[in-house]
Order: sequence, then C-alpha cells, then structure tokens
Amino acid sequence: MKLVKVHVTLKEGVLDPQGKAVQGSLNTLGYDFVQEVRVGKYLELTVEDDANIEQQIKEMCNKLLANPVIENYTYTVEEGVTQ
Amino acid sequence: MKLVKVHVTLKEGVLDPQGKAVQGSLNTLGYDFVQEVRVGKYLELTVEDDANIEQQIKEMCNKLLANPVIENYTYTVEEGVTQ
Repeated sequence: MKLVKVHVTLKEGVLDPQGKAVQGSLNTLGYDFVQEVRVGKYLELTVEDDANIEQQIKEMCNKLLANPVIENYTYTVEEGVTQ
Repeated sequence: MKLVKVHVTLKEGVLDPQGKAVQGSLNTLGYDFVQEVRVGKYLELTVEDDANIEQQIKEMCNKLLANPVIENYTYTVEEGVTQ
C-alpha cells in the first residue's frame, strides 16, 4: 500500500472568493496581520501498489481531482503504508 | 512577510462522505487500486512578521480555520516571502 498526498491549489491570478472570505473573517476577529489567504484542497489517497502509479495519479488529477484550467496540483507518494 | 501553510484534516474515525464520493468516482473511472480517499483543506496565509506568530496561528486554527472537535491541523511557517 502507498499513501498519495495531493495538493490542489488555484493558479496565480485566479480569484479566490473563499480565501477572501476567510481573510475577512480573520481580520474581523483581530488578526490584522493576515494579508492574504488562499484556500486549496488536500487529499490523501490510500492505493494498492501499482507499477505505473505516477502516471495514474497525474491522470486522476487531470480528470477528476483538479480542474487543470484554473488549478495546479502537486503530489507525493509515500511507501509502505500499513492498514 | 511569512507564508503559513495550514493543513486541516478530519480526525481518524470521523466519517468522510466527500472522500467516499471521490473514491467512488475514481473507482468508477477504472482506478480500482484506490482503496480510500480522505479530503482535507489546505490554506496558505501570507502574514506580516509577528513575534508571536505560532501562538496566533494556533488561535486562528482553533477559532476559525479548523473545527477542533472533528479536525486536526498542522502548520508550517516559511520565512521571507516577498510580494
């Protein structure tokens, strides 16, 4: 088993209304030093060992996990997860 | 300026219907080797330098960014972000 950690973030220049809302809330709560917030997704996938895992992850990200038009993704693969 | 990266994940044992849905979709698309998916949040905060930043981040996470009843959070602080 492997643990795949995927980060999906909005590309630079893409508006992030959710991040703006979080920033506004933090500022309202008194955390004035917060200048910008960007919100992304973080996914942990537990997968069976597969010889072609890197290629498969890229496919899954492009097809389902991320929207490649407005989002970037990065991933790491960790070996030897026991369940 | 500092860049704070926050990961918010559901605690173990807490049901993750969003993750289940993603896993189901991936399986339907033919990615049968995906056994489990857990979905979390990933936030990037750009903050002004503050002597007490670690304490402030913990406060922000407990008050707004995470729900400490069902979610865990981790964070890292990176120095010297230029804008």
